[in-house]
Amino acid sequence: MTMRWLQSPVAQPDEGARLAAEARQADLTKPPGALGRLEEIAIRLAALQGTPTPRADRVHVTIFAGDHGVTAEGVSAFPQAVTAEMIRNFVRGGAAISVLSRALDATLEVVDLGTVVDPGPLDNVIRNRIGPGTANFVQGAAMTGDERDAALNAGREAVLRAQRAGAQIFIGGEMGIGNTTAASALTCALLDIDPDRVTGIGTGLSGDGVARKINVIRRALALHRPAVASPLEALRRLGGFEIAALTASYIACAQLGLPALVDGFIAGSAALCAERCLPGTGRWLLFSHASTEPGHSAIHSAFGTTPLLDLQMRLGEGSGAAVCVPLLRLACALHNGMATFAEAGVSEKTG
Amino acid sequence: MTMRWLQSPVAQPDEGARLAAEARQADLTKPPGALGRLEEIAIRLAALQGTPTPRADRVHVTIFAGDHGVTAEGVSAFPQAVTAEMIRNFVRGGAAISVLSRALDATLEVVDLGTVVDPGPLDNVIRNRIGPGTANFVQGAAMTGDERDAALNAGREAVLRAQRAGAQIFIGGEMGIGNTTAASALTCALLDIDPDRVTGIGTGLSGDGVARKINVIRRALALHRPAVASPLEALRRLGGFEIAALTASYIACAQLGLPALVDGFIAGSAALCAERCLPGTGRWLLFSHASTEPGHSAIHSAFGTTPLLDLQMRLGEGSGAAVCVPLLRLACALHNGMATFAEAGVSEKTG
Repeated sequence: MTMRWLQSPVAQPDEGARLAAEARQADLTKPPGALGRLEEIAIRLAALQGTPTPRADRVHVTIFAGDHGVTAEGVSAFPQAVTAEMIRNFVRGGAAISVLSRALDATLEVVDLGTVVDPGPLDNVIRNRIGPGTANFVQGAAMTGDERDAALNAGREAVLRAQRAGAQIFIGGEMGIGNTTAASALTCALLDIDPDRVTGIGTGLSGDGVARKINVIRRALALHRPAVASPLEALRRLGGFEIAALTASYIACAQLGLPALVDGFIAGSAALCAERCLPGTGRWLLFSHASTEPGHSAIHSAFGTTPLLDLQMRLGEGSGAAVCVPLLRLACALHNGMATFAEAGVSEKTG
Repeated sequence: MTMRWLQSPVAQPDEGARLAAEARQADLTKPPGALGRLEEIAIRLAALQGTPTPRADRVHVTIFAGDHGVTAEGVSAFPQAVTAEMIRNFVRGGAAISVLSRALDATLEVVDLGTVVDPGPLDNVIRNRIGPGTANFVQGAAMTGDERDAALNAGREAVLRAQRAGAQIFIGGEMGIGNTTAASALTCALLDIDPDRVTGIGTGLSGDGVARKINVIRRALALHRPAVASPLEALRRLGGFEIAALTASYIACAQLGLPALVDGFIAGSAALCAERCLPGTGRWLLFSHASTEPGHSAIHSAFGTTPLLDLQMRLGEGSGAAVCVPLLRLACALHNGMATFAEAGVSEKTG
């Protein structure tokens, strides 16, 4: 399969729309800057959507699911069967992201990229099973080149579906028991930092469990670091199907000009990989929330950004990004709907 | 007028509902605690609303407006006429809180407690004009006892209206040019701290303007501190009509058992005064956002709480609290709508 699309350039935000949005914010009946980051959101969305009146009404959520060979090392508090069980829970409506998508009137789809237990065909689940999970990356590369590329293509296809459906915001979520271990290893490789700075409890490890997880990541880095010459190679060796798909989804969003709202730590590691693969991708990313996973702040620092929310969440599934959607909507409503000083007959600042 | 209601006890949160909500959170298909503060919100609302299935659908917003004599000292970046102009803007739909209330399907009402310019009768504005603003508190008390009590009663009446309308959440907002000066002075008196720790730019003062404002507050504190024996006396001398009304609204919420979502710094100073007047009031308050006004963090520290949002807002009008409403709604939707492990057939934690 050809991966030439990975080389396509990043789309350019609309500077005229940004300036128009900035000018409008200055005219609205409030002290300049008093809406804080809600002003920043509206102005950024205006530039990204190429309109002085941005919107975040139509939101497309894709959850990429896949299993991880490294789970054999005892790095997760939950059994591996949960990945497939949660795929069913997503589309039956019982998971956090299912509830949030309903509440937000967002489109929700799941892409099964390969789990140890095959959940079988399910409504709203796209079967794109690359294999029954990745290989254990303490023993070798997590994926072959073909497997990684298949996952990358699956990520891009989700964004193409979102764009065809007229989405104004793309959210990528993930499900994969063991995937904070992969995200931590990938983040260490990309930022060249030690695992004890990024590794956390994931779904709820004990202190001993975290120590074991750090040790597993350290062994994996010792094995792969000498051979990690490019971000795509780091992704192949240390990532996972869903992390590769998320990486590609952010690249595709940047190429196609669709703003993406980035979820937590695992999505963040993919965003980092995407930016390293195609510099400038980050201009199309809005960072939604600060996860309690310690590696997340290293990623936000690398992007030079502060996420909008800090609610001490650590669930994944795109849930933190989804919780952020109402802030985007209210930022747009304020931007588009408030009166100007002239319209309202309100006196302007004198002091 | 009798103020006996101020002595009524605070309602007790429902510990049974709290325990039931905690147990439910532990059964939902997510790692325990993974929804972070959204779990905390749902559990607190369950206890406050006395139900294992809390809701934040019906939200009542009351904006209390009043002018401040201390504006004569040059403490605001905007002319005093803006208070009345904004009352019109609120009910005509052009202000931030108007847009937010529409977007949230919340009830919005304005109480005119007395402005220098009389805006005249307006739909959805309750005329409860105590006088054409408070007196300049660097020269004497801001209010007489009767004026303060009239403002307190107006605050309680707003909560009674909200309760009659079946509100599940009360939001008090404020409008009053000069009122960060009053809120800063009141906060200093209640917390016994220096004005340079709490005083900020308000609607947008320059550095010189902030220095002048600090000096004004220092003069006021020198005049009034020896006579401030009680929080109600501090409120009378250093507060404002809208700050007194907000104080009473929080006390009434706590007495009547209606959760209040507290806005920014000015609302926070009223919340602090309310807690000092009737200890335990704070159990009924949810703190929505961290204002950029420096005094706000001193108030949050006094309550031992961290607000949910930090969006660098500093607008007032109840706008920060309104922006927080979707978080409460999503917290309730997740709590009430997610499947349990048993319902979804998902394996539980092993590690």
